[in-house]
Amino acid sequence: MIGDKELDDFLLNGDQVYMQGLSVDCVIFGFHEHVLNVLLLKWKTGGQWCLPGGFIKKEESVDDSAIRILKDRTGLDHIFLQQFHLFGEPSRDKNKDLIKNKSKKGSWFNQRFATIGYYALVEFSKVTPKPDWLSEECRWTEIHRVPKLIYDHNAIVKKALYALRLSLNDYPVGYNLLAEKFTMPELQSLYETILDKPLDRRNFQKKILNMNILERLKERKTGGAHKAPYLYRFDKKKYETALKQGLKSGF
Amino acid sequence: MIGDKELDDFLLNGDQVYMQGLSVDCVIFGFHEHVLNVLLLKWKTGGQWCLPGGFIKKEESVDDSAIRILKDRTGLDHIFLQQFHLFGEPSRDKNKDLIKNKSKKGSWFNQRFATIGYYALVEFSKVTPKPDWLSEECRWTEIHRVPKLIYDHNAIVKKALYALRLSLNDYPVGYNLLAEKFTMPELQSLYETILDKPLDRRNFQKKILNMNILERLKERKTGGAHKAPYLYRFDKKKYETALKQGLKSGF
Repeated sequence: MIGDKELDDFLLNGDQVYMQGLSVDCVIFGFHEHVLNVLLLKWKTGGQWCLPGGFIKKEESVDDSAIRILKDRTGLDHIFLQQFHLFGEPSRDKNKDLIKNKSKKGSWFNQRFATIGYYALVEFSKVTPKPDWLSEECRWTEIHRVPKLIYDHNAIVKKALYALRLSLNDYPVGYNLLAEKFTMPELQSLYETILDKPLDRRNFQKKILNMNILERLKERKTGGAHKAPYLYRFDKKKYETALKQGLKSGF
Repeated sequence: MIGDKELDDFLLNGDQVYMQGLSVDCVIFGFHEHVLNVLLLKWKTGGQWCLPGGFIKKEESVDDSAIRILKDRTGLDHIFLQQFHLFGEPSRDKNKDLIKNKSKKGSWFNQRFATIGYYALVEFSKVTPKPDWLSEECRWTEIHRVPKLIYDHNAIVKKALYALRLSLNDYPVGYNLLAEKFTMPELQSLYETILDKPLDRRNFQKKILNMNILERLKERKTGGAHKAPYLYRFDKKKYETALKQGLKSGF
């Protein structure tokens, strides 16, 4: 259970520490063996599920607060974290019944909050999920099995997935998700998992090579019965540049 | 000049009307005869330039506040307005010297604000720019001639332009900017203006036709000395669908 004193202090004095009216929610996608998962928290009081999130300290940049939340929940840092949308409907968090018995009328926490969404994509076997102080559980859930979440959090997950998929046209993906050296079918499988659909092998190869972020190695993958496929790795410098500037693969 | 009473009321009682800590800024791009412009305001006090912006009413969605601001400054509605980034550095608006002699210590206005950026693209000859109550002027400025703006507004313009250019891969553009019937070179010229670079004619035509939003008409443009080019128009239904769902032209 949450200590009464701890919660009261948060509800009554949170506005001394945090910005008012703005929160952060993180959609942390986990990729592992061809399955896409999302990291969820279960509240101690009420048992409802929600996204990892939090508030922005008064002297902290909004981006830094998202980095802090990601690190607190996963133990990871230096992860590519992408801001994707501000959710600003006035009714989005009207029903603050998670802690309704605790929530003092006039509390800082009871005001309307807009929330800024960030998504990240991580290799989920590298993560040790850790609940926050309001939660009893922090757990990976398959993207197709996400339960009903609080407020508009289901819509936030949906929008994050849409943004992640759109981003495949604009930014590279795969670093930290695949082994250092990988084959073209392994990379294609990652894209297919994110997009949740099969891709044409030739078109995929052509598009990926056009991004100019891959280096083909002289060695080939060994062990298969058929002709061994080439191994590739990311050209880290070109990859980083593409993350910053976009792939410019369009017009 | 701004009336002292009006300004005092805004500075002292704004938090009765508006959300705290969050503002909206609009980068309104104007397209006209192959030139891209951006709409700027000049403050009465101090004479500095800034983007059209404002605050979010307590019962208003954030998107609706951007629509209201766009309408107030341009007279236009039903314009495609795209949220593109939240600017959340703690120091971004530290220097609130625009109204420094007026700005009471402890005023609502003096707290830190994060701002959510929206961009729109309009046909600028259709717009009647209108200053807000804090400004003496509202004016189109060529994108290459934007002066030093307040706070981080120059960075906001830069990011909006980047977002607009990236969006060309994901969303259609052109409706309301071109005549109802147009030629392929006219459409290409719009893209070239936004991207500020020449495009290959064949590649452009191929990409645009792949978007599946154009209808080629039987009539051709008349009047030229050479072979008359085909006329096109947008298939409004397909165009609207693509605006909502994205072009899916990528993977």
